Amino acid sequence: MTRIGIVGYGNLGRGVEIATKEADDMELVAVFTRRDPQNVSIISKDVPVLKVDDVEEWKDKIDVMILCGGSATDLPVQTPKFAQMFNVIDSFDTHARIPEHFANVDKSAKDNNKVAIISVGWDPGMFSLNRVYANAILPNGKDYTFWGKGVSQGHSDAIRRIKGVKNAKQYTIPVEDALEAVRSGKNPELTTRQKHTRECFVVLEEGADAKFVENEIKTMPNYFDEYNTTVHFISEEELLKNHSGMAHGGVVFRSGSTGLNHENKHIIEYSLKLDSNPEFTTSVLVAYARAAHRLANEGSFGCKTVLDIAPSYLCNMSGDELRAHLL
Amino acid sequence: MTRIGIVGYGNLGRGVEIATKEADDMELVAVFTRRDPQNVSIISKDVPVLKVDDVEEWKDKIDVMILCGGSATDLPVQTPKFAQMFNVIDSFDTHARIPEHFANVDKSAKDNNKVAIISVGWDPGMFSLNRVYANAILPNGKDYTFWGKGVSQGHSDAIRRIKGVKNAKQYTIPVEDALEAVRSGKNPELTTRQKHTRECFVVLEEGADAKFVENEIKTMPNYFDEYNTTVHFISEEELLKNHSGMAHGGVVFRSGSTGLNHENKHIIEYSLKLDSNPEFTTSVLVAYARAAHRLANEGSFGCKTVLDIAPSYLCNMSGDELRAHLL
Repeated sequence: MTRIGIVGYGNLGRGVEIATKEADDMELVAVFTRRDPQNVSIISKDVPVLKVDDVEEWKDKIDVMILCGGSATDLPVQTPKFAQMFNVIDSFDTHARIPEHFANVDKSAKDNNKVAIISVGWDPGMFSLNRVYANAILPNGKDYTFWGKGVSQGHSDAIRRIKGVKNAKQYTIPVEDALEAVRSGKNPELTTRQKHTRECFVVLEEGADAKFVENEIKTMPNYFDEYNTTVHFISEEELLKNHSGMAHGGVVFRSGSTGLNHENKHIIEYSLKLDSNPEFTTSVLVAYARAAHRLANEGSFGCKTVLDIAPSYLCNMSGDELRAHLL
Repeated sequence: MTRIGIVGYGNLGRGVEIATKEADDMELVAVFTRRDPQNVSIISKDVPVLKVDDVEEWKDKIDVMILCGGSATDLPVQTPKFAQMFNVIDSFDTHARIPEHFANVDKSAKDNNKVAIISVGWDPGMFSLNRVYANAILPNGKDYTFWGKGVSQGHSDAIRRIKGVKNAKQYTIPVEDALEAVRSGKNPELTTRQKHTRECFVVLEEGADAKFVENEIKTMPNYFDEYNTTVHFISEEELLKNHSGMAHGGVVFRSGSTGLNHENKHIIEYSLKLDSNPEFTTSVLVAYARAAHRLANEGSFGCKTVLDIAPSYLCNMSGDELRAHLL
């Protein structure tokens, strides 16, 4: 059995709790929170909810701690810190800061004989894996990654910071024609605008200026100015009723060629259609928690990513069973 | 540099030769054949073609030997034998016999401090990987594998053994409605007949009985009797002109659910569209040859499959580069 701990109980923490229940070889033993534990109600009534300050007492009672904080401020501090006491998994997803985060976590984990697996999820995560496999197989080719349709938390937050906005959700939507052009092997050169559109559902504060808000959104640098953006103003009731879903997904393509004159074309496509972004992400986290426990038992300490771990480590089956049934 | 040797120069051997040229870190140093080397003309004029009996002299001059023989009779003998002298890669694809083949090769490789990676290609191979990742992430779900459209060598051979048949090609074709049902999350129960159809292009010997041949094909146990099969009789010229292509492909799906009541559905889809089945297969073999060389340098001896190898081993990039560019 792998004894699992959770730090942070939001959508991700709850997803880890549910995913742990699906696994015969895992047991959730404690949930840690920065809030008052009295006010945190979890699904498993037999599992204690504790203050995160008391985590050290659990050093020898937890095999893998799954860190469910955010990438902006929580994980850069939490992952190196908890890797001093526990084998840890995180879903750090700020691509540009991964090298720095990796270095910090690697030092902690190696100094303390722990395994840390960072940036686990679907992107970074399963999409990264697919980019690496496909690039290794087809060195001559082009990569394409599409996201959506799904809510982008970062873009929704950016809209909420505009004066006059009470609430907002932003969907990232892949352009169907672009997907089809890639899928059919045309190897298109696609600008940012040609790959995705952005659709915003916005609730205004009373008396706010809709024209001003729409213009602020559409011209916002980096977030919206390079995209075709649609803005809908709706009521708060409608937002909560129709836009609270957590569906997401995306597609990774490698379009490559082989042959003496590169005359043979090949398309590798990996696609995800997810009803619940946090529950899928946490299902990946839990599979890698299994790997972390095994790697720790083998003494293979330090920081790793999904690229460093063999697929067999994720499965609750022996090598013989995998070769007989899934190979 | 990884010094590559090839045993057997058919479609696969030629594909390995071409794929090796694409890789900056690989060098083809020799091709071994059972035929008279004088009669084997390869693309690389500076690479020697030698008798397979002389292979032992190359023990210290080749880092990885890629075995390009067939699964029926060649590889069960060749892979354990060559694993005594070389790190080896094969594409053994008789799923039912993989456990036995693994055991034989593992003994040879371990006794001689060599690395052997068997059953490399796309199925077994990339499809297997995707089955394992998807099963690990979504333990509650169903697997679906579809093949084609593409020529099945085994089925084409079976037709050629019928009395009165001069030549034949058989295409395996996935049923579009079945693909769509799976893709849309309907989790259908599909019989063999509902998943694939079989289309045969047959050249008759002079004076052969077309009715007899068609009936022999359609009622052939295991190969055709459980499928909807179409038979076309065509001339040998037409067969060579229109049915000599080597395109293939397929799709692996995992359709699963998460949530307290499994209320959230997720579809993972991995799809390949290949102009050249042998060239794609050999591109995978060459990527795993890179892994075999690294594993040998680390002293990680024995038999392995794609399930036992971390993705980063396949890429000609450092961990830092992979994390910065592909994670």
